[in-house]
Amino acid sequence: MNVGVIGTGAIGTDHVRRLTARVAGARVTAVFDVDTARAATVAAIAGATAHREAHDVIDDPAVEAVLVASPGDTHADLVLACVAAGKPVLCEKPLASTSGAALKVVEAEATYGRRLVQVGFMRRYDVGYLGVKAALGAGRIGDPLLVHCVHRNVGVPAGFTGDMSLTDSLVHEVDACRWLLDQEIVAATVVEVPHSPLASPELRDPRLVLLETERGIVVDAEVFVNARYGYDVRCEVVGTTGTVALEAPTTGAVALDGGRVQALPMDWQARFGQAYVDELQAWVDAVRRGVTEGPSAWDGYAATAVAEAAVASRGARTSVDLAERPALYSGESSS
Amino acid sequence: MNVGVIGTGAIGTDHVRRLTARVAGARVTAVFDVDTARAATVAAIAGATAHREAHDVIDDPAVEAVLVASPGDTHADLVLACVAAGKPVLCEKPLASTSGAALKVVEAEATYGRRLVQVGFMRRYDVGYLGVKAALGAGRIGDPLLVHCVHRNVGVPAGFTGDMSLTDSLVHEVDACRWLLDQEIVAATVVEVPHSPLASPELRDPRLVLLETERGIVVDAEVFVNARYGYDVRCEVVGTTGTVALEAPTTGAVALDGGRVQALPMDWQARFGQAYVDELQAWVDAVRRGVTEGPSAWDGYAATAVAEAAVASRGARTSVDLAERPALYSGESSS
Amino acid sequence: MNVGVIGTGAIGTDHVRRLTARVAGARVTAVFDVDTARAATVAAIAGATAHREAHDVIDDPAVEAVLVASPGDTHADLVLACVAAGKPVLCEKPLASTSGAALKVVEAEATYGRRLVQVGFMRRYDVGYLGVKAALGAGRIGDPLLVHCVHRNVGVPAGFTGDMSLTDSLVHEVDACRWLLDQEIVAATVVEVPHSPLASPELRDPRLVLLETERGIVVDAEVFVNARYGYDVRCEVVGTTGTVALEAPTTGAVALDGGRVQALPMDWQARFGQAYVDELQAWVDAVRRGVTEGPSAWDGYAATAVAEAAVASRGARTSVDLAERPALYSGESSS
Amino acid sequence: MNVGVIGTGAIGTDHVRRLTARVAGARVTAVFDVDTARAATVAAIAGATAHREAHDVIDDPAVEAVLVASPGDTHADLVLACVAAGKPVLCEKPLASTSGAALKVVEAEATYGRRLVQVGFMRRYDVGYLGVKAALGAGRIGDPLLVHCVHRNVGVPAGFTGDMSLTDSLVHEVDACRWLLDQEIVAATVVEVPHSPLASPELRDPRLVLLETERGIVVDAEVFVNARYGYDVRCEVVGTTGTVALEAPTTGAVALDGGRVQALPMDWQARFGQAYVDELQAWVDAVRRGVTEGPSAWDGYAATAVAEAAVASRGARTSVDLAERPALYSGESSS
Repeated sequence: MNVGVIGTGAIGTDHVRRLTARVAGARVTAVFDVDTARAATVAAIAGATAHREAHDVIDDPAVEAVLVASPGDTHADLVLACVAAGKPVLCEKPLASTSGAALKVVEAEATYGRRLVQVGFMRRYDVGYLGVKAALGAGRIGDPLLVHCVHRNVGVPAGFTGDMSLTDSLVHEVDACRWLLDQEIVAATVVEVPHSPLASPELRDPRLVLLETERGIVVDAEVFVNARYGYDVRCEVVGTTGTVALEAPTTGAVALDGGRVQALPMDWQARFGQAYVDELQAWVDAVRRGVTEGPSAWDGYAATAVAEAAVASRGARTSVDLAERPALYSGESSS
Repeated sequence: MNVGVIGTGAIGTDHVRRLTARVAGARVTAVFDVDTARAATVAAIAGATAHREAHDVIDDPAVEAVLVASPGDTHADLVLACVAAGKPVLCEKPLASTSGAALKVVEAEATYGRRLVQVGFMRRYDVGYLGVKAALGAGRIGDPLLVHCVHRNVGVPAGFTGDMSLTDSLVHEVDACRWLLDQEIVAATVVEVPHSPLASPELRDPRLVLLETERGIVVDAEVFVNARYGYDVRCEVVGTTGTVALEAPTTGAVALDGGRVQALPMDWQARFGQAYVDELQAWVDAVRRGVTEGPSAWDGYAATAVAEAAVASRGARTSVDLAERPALYSGESSS
Repeated sequence: MNVGVIGTGAIGTDHVRRLTARVAGARVTAVFDVDTARAATVAAIAGATAHREAHDVIDDPAVEAVLVASPGDTHADLVLACVAAGKPVLCEKPLASTSGAALKVVEAEATYGRRLVQVGFMRRYDVGYLGVKAALGAGRIGDPLLVHCVHRNVGVPAGFTGDMSLTDSLVHEVDACRWLLDQEIVAATVVEVPHSPLASPELRDPRLVLLETERGIVVDAEVFVNARYGYDVRCEVVGTTGTVALEAPTTGAVALDGGRVQALPMDWQARFGQAYVDELQAWVDAVRRGVTEGPSAWDGYAATAVAEAAVASRGARTSVDLAERPALYSGESSS
Repeated sequence: MNVGVIGTGAIGTDHVRRLTARVAGARVTAVFDVDTARAATVAAIAGATAHREAHDVIDDPAVEAVLVASPGDTHADLVLACVAAGKPVLCEKPLASTSGAALKVVEAEATYGRRLVQVGFMRRYDVGYLGVKAALGAGRIGDPLLVHCVHRNVGVPAGFTGDMSLTDSLVHEVDACRWLLDQEIVAATVVEVPHSPLASPELRDPRLVLLETERGIVVDAEVFVNARYGYDVRCEVVGTTGTVALEAPTTGAVALDGGRVQALPMDWQARFGQAYVDELQAWVDAVRRGVTEGPSAWDGYAATAVAEAAVASRGARTSVDLAERPALYSGESSS
């Protein structure tokens, strides 16, 4: 399967490398980046053509499927173009920078009549999250009542400001909870908490957010993007008869200097690198079978809508006013 | 040291047994219970006299210190009588059933001029909590920003109704956080969460409570008294450079049927039995040295005031209006 | 890269699926199995040709590299044929059913003058083992002194008899220790232990084996192929200043019925499935770069020689009399 | 109960403190030490009399029970004197410096006709070991086949030389395994392993020892008294259907600098401090009820006999030739 990749920054380049060297059945034949030198370098790695415009990648007749990894505010237009061209597209999250723009993608795809869009919520491919999903599905903890989430980064790049810990980081928790619980999130509240003096002043960090699902389950999610000690993603679902928890994966320990130490990953590449490979493989496999699966445009829209509600909430509960879900996405809800 | 014990229900009897068989330097010489038969039985265990009235225990000239383990609504009057008599008293939590009543104890003790009252917040004597306190004191995680607490019981007795999960269970988290962070809690909010169908309908269970300290640190505390699977108390303090977590104590594991299983305690006696012994030993040791240490009447008052605010909050943030702290308790704040 | 696969039993079929669906840059173009129906089925999966003879796969001009997954006693001849044909070959362990036969491969490859043979010790590609190797390489535990190994299977198929727990299971520990410690094993002793009544009588199970390296480090290895509760591989290296341990990988836990349960894998596919993928990807990548890396024919020879010594030992220490190591393998020793 | 304590070195002083300040129903009324100044200091702590001779403590009519914590080579004579005086005695391990001397104590007590002697194997009172014992007793792992033991100290005092890691350290594993498995150990073999360059040259360290029980169960025990990183005692019993493991007790973790760290104890006081208190309380309780329970003189004899066999073994299996067990100890075997 010939893939065109739009955006060859850090994430885009990683995806090109994975498609080239870790995924079966795909090759990158076309790339685009606004930084033409970088695009050329990445094209060379993959033996691909570097195009002059993003849309040239989509229009390239040899390109059978598109991967969008350009800046978030370009996503919606590019994905719409893919839908218009009838080409399957894997779009890095977020699907769009506003829920309104995301909804346009949903509507376009619904009009097209079958799924072409997958959104890059890679956690759904993580072995740990899959274990939580399986435990829930098997009814091992009874009915879910509460979810506790933690999302900590060592630090963030200079450009990470304002509400990005909600729109860029929290969306992963939003999608993971929607998927695990198989229901929509209908309200969000940001709780005031102290600001870490080690975080940039433009950034409120950490954040504590309360989410509420359509059936009343409450999620509390800590997002702390300057946690310093490690990249730590955790999730505990509390049910009527037990709990199931995702914790930092471990394979052993070092005993040293008075302590038993389990190493933590220091970034999301280390923590979710295999999930990205498995996400891409699943996408390629599905597209080659003629279908698109995984997180949908609806999922991308819902995650952005919830993040927007969280941004707007400022301490007071804010409802998420979701659009009517098109029939295309019914039956699969958030799963 | 001759101890008089008022109240020989389950907790009182456990305390009598501990003072008799596990604690050095103390013996129980007098007991009282409204159930005179039970009092007589427990008196026989300890070789003590069963008195006819609770106040007879306090007035008994042979009694050097009093342990109050009667129903919560009798605590304040009994402790006031101990203060009036100038006798050291260890009062099971809560110090009083209202913050107003607790404040009267604080004022009486402040007037008396030195501490006589210790409140039974046994978690301060637990090895795990002491480890968290030590890590915080050593600055291992930088400055605390957030605390996540979990307090789960297998189930509760029939009489456990209404807001007792706040006034009887949550108070432990309140005291633990005040002590760990060495600051007052100034606001409480109860978040609406689903009711477990396995819990009695008169009881809102689980509860999710947000607490805010005087320096803005936010605590989220889940109290779930029908969690079924085990008695599970956890606490993670998130600091600017790391976190420290209290987890269920473990000493090993069984590998069986596809799983590695670490046993959980099923009740607070199993989880905190040793903490109770250490609490009593510390109390006896201090009193024999002529002082009273440990959780103070002020701590008891503050915990009840916060629980009251939580009860009143019903989804909206409610301030805790603490009284002026008498000089007797200054300098030691919550520690 | 066009791969020919000889042997399409359980492991061979798994490899075909991986090469087809999980590995970048390879496809299976030819297969052979003595069971021609099975070969035809597997050929269909991969879109490959089913050959009539094993050697036809090697001789097939379209085949650029060979994967040998036929029964162990056929390995040496097939690998020798690959070397004679100058084709890279990944041979499932064991390299040969005797050390003598394995040595012939070593000698043939040494004569050929460069490496063509990789032996399928997949543990070297496991994230957990790589973590142990990295900790040792970084000197985190000082100098290694002892190693404790555990290798437990839920059960074994009917044909698993006699000394196969040494020749088929223990060899993994032998290779892992040689690689981790970067030195040869020079002696083996099997210690008499009780026989599990749940194991087949023809099988001595569990086994406890002591291995000794050229620099005197001692490895104790328990191999228990009827352990029932799970597939559990562990390894702790004890150094002068600390230890590093490989444990069952975990990603979280379920709390249920009085216990915190971490799931264990039930077979080696579950435990080492990703390691197999990474092994194949590394092999394909290297071969496409024109080299062969990973566990060598010498490693395969040494592992078999140690297993043979263990079989011969019967309670008394037996030396492993390794051949002179050809220059081809020097410098890389066991790594 | 009035206790006389013979030996007020580090362990003796700790015991005096525990009996005085942590144990109910006992007080130390008499002490002796060859260092009369130290004896006087310790006597002052407890409000006890310092005697001039060890035997004066035993003969002191006010002394109801004796605790022997003097150097190991004085134990047997002192315990014999206690038996002759009909006084209950808790003797620190070892019961005697030779199995011959220990056997004399066994015979004297057997002649006396009822138990007076308890040996200080405190691990039997440790919560973790009790959990292992309970799991075995409940049949959770089927029938035991193998045991893996680890016993590591940070370091040892200057006087710790020669075979003391067998006679002073390994004896704990010997007693723990006899008690857990409820059977005698009948053979011992010391396996040659490398010497840690950080250990004193007079000391072979670490040691790896194989023990064999009367029903053929094999124990491998690593004793490493210069392990540096922590005090670490572990034990895994492997059964026909599962395993049960004692691990370092934990109560939580600190996440810091890329790792999740569980603190390890740095010495046996930290690891087994509570077990010592519980041992003393159990001894006092039993003696006050008129009986002696816990590890017996026979257990002390057997442990020393096994350690002697280990010392003698030097790489070859050495049988432990136990004496006939007197009827006094039958029925209780090693439990």
